[in-house]
Amino acid sequence: MASNPHSNNEQAETKEMDIRSLSSSRRQVHSESYLHKVAVPPKQNLFREFTATVKETLFADDPLRPFKHQPRSRKFILGIQAIFPIFEWGRSYTWRKFRGDIIAGLTIASLCIPQDIGYAKLANLDPEYGLYSSFVPPLIYAFMGSSRDIAIGPVAVVSLLLGTMLSNEIDPKKNKAEYLRLAFTATFFAGIIQATLGVLRLGFLIDFLSHAAIVGFMAGAAVTIALQQLKGLLGIKDFTKNPDIVSVMQSVWGNIDQWNWQTIVIGVCFLSFLLFAKYIGKKNKKFFWVPAIAPLISVIIATFFVFITRADKQGVAIVKHIKQGINPSSVNQIYFSGEYLTKGIKIGVVAGMVALTEAAAIGRTFASMKEYQIDGNKEMMAIGAMNIVGSMTSCYVATGSFSRSAVNFMAGCETAVSNIVMSCVVFLTLEFITPLFKYTPNTILAAIIINAVIGLFDVPAAILIWKIDKFDFVACLGAFLGVVFRSVEIGLLIAVIISFAKILLQVTRPRTALLGKIPRSTVYRNIQQYPEATRVPGVLIVRVDSSIYFSNANYVRERILRWLMDEEEQVKAACQPAIQFLIIEMSPVTDIDTSGIHAMEELHKSLQKKNIRLVLANPAPVVIEKLHSSKFTDIIGDDNIFLTVADAVSSCSPKWVEEEV
Amino acid sequence: MASNPHSNNEQAETKEMDIRSLSSSRRQVHSESYLHKVAVPPKQNLFREFTATVKETLFADDPLRPFKHQPRSRKFILGIQAIFPIFEWGRSYTWRKFRGDIIAGLTIASLCIPQDIGYAKLANLDPEYGLYSSFVPPLIYAFMGSSRDIAIGPVAVVSLLLGTMLSNEIDPKKNKAEYLRLAFTATFFAGIIQATLGVLRLGFLIDFLSHAAIVGFMAGAAVTIALQQLKGLLGIKDFTKNPDIVSVMQSVWGNIDQWNWQTIVIGVCFLSFLLFAKYIGKKNKKFFWVPAIAPLISVIIATFFVFITRADKQGVAIVKHIKQGINPSSVNQIYFSGEYLTKGIKIGVVAGMVALTEAAAIGRTFASMKEYQIDGNKEMMAIGAMNIVGSMTSCYVATGSFSRSAVNFMAGCETAVSNIVMSCVVFLTLEFITPLFKYTPNTILAAIIINAVIGLFDVPAAILIWKIDKFDFVACLGAFLGVVFRSVEIGLLIAVIISFAKILLQVTRPRTALLGKIPRSTVYRNIQQYPEATRVPGVLIVRVDSSIYFSNANYVRERILRWLMDEEEQVKAACQPAIQFLIIEMSPVTDIDTSGIHAMEELHKSLQKKNIRLVLANPAPVVIEKLHSSKFTDIIGDDNIFLTVADAVSSCSPKWVEEEV
Repeated sequence: MASNPHSNNEQAETKEMDIRSLSSSRRQVHSESYLHKVAVPPKQNLFREFTATVKETLFADDPLRPFKHQPRSRKFILGIQAIFPIFEWGRSYTWRKFRGDIIAGLTIASLCIPQDIGYAKLANLDPEYGLYSSFVPPLIYAFMGSSRDIAIGPVAVVSLLLGTMLSNEIDPKKNKAEYLRLAFTATFFAGIIQATLGVLRLGFLIDFLSHAAIVGFMAGAAVTIALQQLKGLLGIKDFTKNPDIVSVMQSVWGNIDQWNWQTIVIGVCFLSFLLFAKYIGKKNKKFFWVPAIAPLISVIIATFFVFITRADKQGVAIVKHIKQGINPSSVNQIYFSGEYLTKGIKIGVVAGMVALTEAAAIGRTFASMKEYQIDGNKEMMAIGAMNIVGSMTSCYVATGSFSRSAVNFMAGCETAVSNIVMSCVVFLTLEFITPLFKYTPNTILAAIIINAVIGLFDVPAAILIWKIDKFDFVACLGAFLGVVFRSVEIGLLIAVIISFAKILLQVTRPRTALLGKIPRSTVYRNIQQYPEATRVPGVLIVRVDSSIYFSNANYVRERILRWLMDEEEQVKAACQPAIQFLIIEMSPVTDIDTSGIHAMEELHKSLQKKNIRLVLANPAPVVIEKLHSSKFTDIIGDDNIFLTVADAVSSCSPKWVEEEV
Repeated sequence: MASNPHSNNEQAETKEMDIRSLSSSRRQVHSESYLHKVAVPPKQNLFREFTATVKETLFADDPLRPFKHQPRSRKFILGIQAIFPIFEWGRSYTWRKFRGDIIAGLTIASLCIPQDIGYAKLANLDPEYGLYSSFVPPLIYAFMGSSRDIAIGPVAVVSLLLGTMLSNEIDPKKNKAEYLRLAFTATFFAGIIQATLGVLRLGFLIDFLSHAAIVGFMAGAAVTIALQQLKGLLGIKDFTKNPDIVSVMQSVWGNIDQWNWQTIVIGVCFLSFLLFAKYIGKKNKKFFWVPAIAPLISVIIATFFVFITRADKQGVAIVKHIKQGINPSSVNQIYFSGEYLTKGIKIGVVAGMVALTEAAAIGRTFASMKEYQIDGNKEMMAIGAMNIVGSMTSCYVATGSFSRSAVNFMAGCETAVSNIVMSCVVFLTLEFITPLFKYTPNTILAAIIINAVIGLFDVPAAILIWKIDKFDFVACLGAFLGVVFRSVEIGLLIAVIISFAKILLQVTRPRTALLGKIPRSTVYRNIQQYPEATRVPGVLIVRVDSSIYFSNANYVRERILRWLMDEEEQVKAACQPAIQFLIIEMSPVTDIDTSGIHAMEELHKSLQKKNIRLVLANPAPVVIEKLHSSKFTDIIGDDNIFLTVADAVSSCSPKWVEEEV
């Protein structure tokens, strides 16, 4: 039907169709129904096609839209504002907003200080490095980031991941200085990879970690982190270095003699207090600040208590020393050569990607709650920049924290100024208050971390995943078990592998369906979904539900032939007329490649042998163009290509159609 | 509309629809048109769903079909025949078929003997190992393989690949014995991986190397192999070990003083003769045997000529020595422990996969030409078994050869007996004739290899790829340049990476299209493909051309919003009515996962903010089921889901539809 592909003249077309429908040997069912030809789109310029593909791939969000039709000076300002959004929203900043931000900032500061000290331990670093990482990165982010609700700083999962991977390379106790240097190196390259992904607009790469895999990974990390805290909570001294549940349980039960009852009493009491505070906050949204400040209150009370009772002499482990003063420079500490360079890059890339995934999920969640837009690629540049600067100012990998961002949101933050406020509080803490943490018992930090990571264990999400998609649930469970029974890296690897396996399965084994006619309509639908749909005798209608690419071309061909064989068996058994036409509904086939065309040619050959005519319905623009350029349309004949299945059927089996109507 | 998903009672349904169409507040356009509900398929049993998925993934070709409804004894015989197809076709073997096989077998034997000697050199092995590999593996294959046309033995590309990878580990000159042992180890594990893929029915994994990438890789390998032959053809002694074109050219032009004119004369003369023979064979299919026996004739004449003239004393390099006698056992030589075990496995896996890819392509091509079926997984088991046995009988990786299979086909082979015939000839050669090869000049072997690999350089295929799919052409070119300028491994790596990149791109950036109504029909199609299609005022109809998964969910959401923004701008500029409805045509969306549903929820939220109603048309069974179980249908309302776009439009804009008709 596509005899004159480039005609856009509608009159000529209508005329052609008129002639067709008059001269056609096919019986017209309704006198008013026209047979429409399948249009071949005008051949696109190669360069234009290429730029269109690049644009869809890398600039899908159309970041240059606001720059359109603007004078040059305005473009410059817009450019500055694009890199530093603070200059955009800062111009409309008000005192009213500041009130919200300062409350939110103080709240997350009170939450972050004890968390930071604990998280630094997860990364096998001294407590001050956690505080450092809550001072510089949030400042940078406030200038460059576009999320209004994210709270920046060290987070549990990344700290644990970094700690595990770094200590695989260097023993944090024996070679403390080198360990620290490698941590800064990894942080630097985490920032580099994050910023690079943003600049190259490859942010979509983080989409390759599926939601289900992340849920499982996070839950696993939560369990692992909570288990690690048993060391502090029970006061055990000789604790395993292996993060898996089996080793930890052996450590816990094998060292019962080391359990310290004073430590346990303090820890369990405050953990109960924290959990109760969380419960109150959940029950009544008004009291969101109760769980937010509970950790700091716990720290103050517990520290005071230990100081008074000198419980540290009874074996209650305390923080002992946090270095006073703000971040020292660490520019000279980053490895730019030697064997640790590649190791730092490797660790940095993994930690950076995980950090990005977390930040992106947080940013997206709160943006959709408050209904503003976030540019994922710009976010990556901001986060990358803050980690690069961070690595030079003694910080380790920072990102958006789930728990603190939620508190930030509920405390009524308006802009990233809340991060600046938090940063200032951390600054004051580093300058003046750190000596006061001397008697803070480790057990209280363990309780705070356990309380914090419980939120990562998202049971409702897992249940929803189970309900919606069983394969997703396997991915979720695989990542979870991988983290719990082996290590965060193995869990992450499993998550990535399962995510990719899902993609590959999807492209290798597309669905196909047999179609039948929905009664009293001209619509053909899957007969499994619509049991009332009727089959057309002598015609087999198959829909291929995916593009036909090298990865599935053979399968599609074999699957169609199998439908045909099944059908022929049934037809024989029921003594019905033999299949004479095979109609392939191509609507979902949006693209085809050389392998796909080969497969179609082979299918056509096999059908010819059986005296079955191959008919195509509704090929997409790209597909029809490729079928043309490969001369496949000549092989099967232009008049075997139709706009709709109904047209095709009325050509193959006009009598039946008439009877049906 | 999916209020009562589990009702299969047609009467009740019709009644329900009648009530609907009467009581509906929507204006019915035709009194006889019914609104059909979108059926939710009955919930499937979890176990059944799982087995169905496994079956589609691993048993897509339904290998157990012939076993259905058979008595047990018959099943046993069918099982034996499934593993050893020779017991199936052997029962109907006739003298007439044997005549065809013996001619074909003799022809490919005459072709394979000189090729084998040359290919063994590519793998840095002594010439007899090439002949060994043409003796045992074809025998095994004849019993287990299901292709009737494939000619088994060493092939150029795999020999080169194996030679390169092995000599990266061990110097073939200094540690000859170890090199040989590693070669057998690699062959063993190549066989193991091949057989394993077959047994586990994972044969579809080789589909992940796209046709385009293979074309490029083969062409690159042909160039590399041909360039390597310049050493023999020009008689250069100090030749580079690097396979890339730059090093080879430096070797060739840097060592002009080593060129040996006698060698060149002999080589060029016979190369011309071979090319001329090939030309004759191509021009007239009747003379297919001319290019087939030309190599052996060249060898005989050249050997005799050198023997008479003693040209070897003039610097013409000769074979010198081929060990007499058949394959010795090499069971004890395979490394089953130590550092070479892992290296052997690595090399074996790569070589085995490449060998499989070649064999599968050949098997498929000739099966479709003669119109018989090949079971890819069974083929893999046969090829795996022959390489495992081969590795124990001093053979290196064998597979199907393109050139010899084509000759086999044209010489009129009927069954795998031609491989047995060839094997017997090679046996006789090894036992009695090898001493006669002493004076065979190396230059003639080089000429034969160059002549053979020219066929791998498939220009028409590359041109077709360029015409059909530009991205495929990039893959093809990338693999080609990788092989030519670096090495076969790099080329292979590029081919695999580009193939995967293509898959990932496909699943990350699915197409979307705006739809319009084709005049005088109720069909809605892409307005880019059908410029005559008319848009519905106040309604935006978008089709998503792919399943919505975690890898593309965000993109799809953003892309739909961008279509909407573009449209709103246009509508504003043209002072048309504002968009009130967004219809998503879901026909190509055959599946959705948790991330996809999240994206839909976010899209719905964004639309709500703009006071635009989200309407879905024709969701697939799996999709509607998941939308239900995630309660998304409750969020958007069951009455916003329609069977067709036409139904949806007539609900959104009944007035327009009436006017149009």
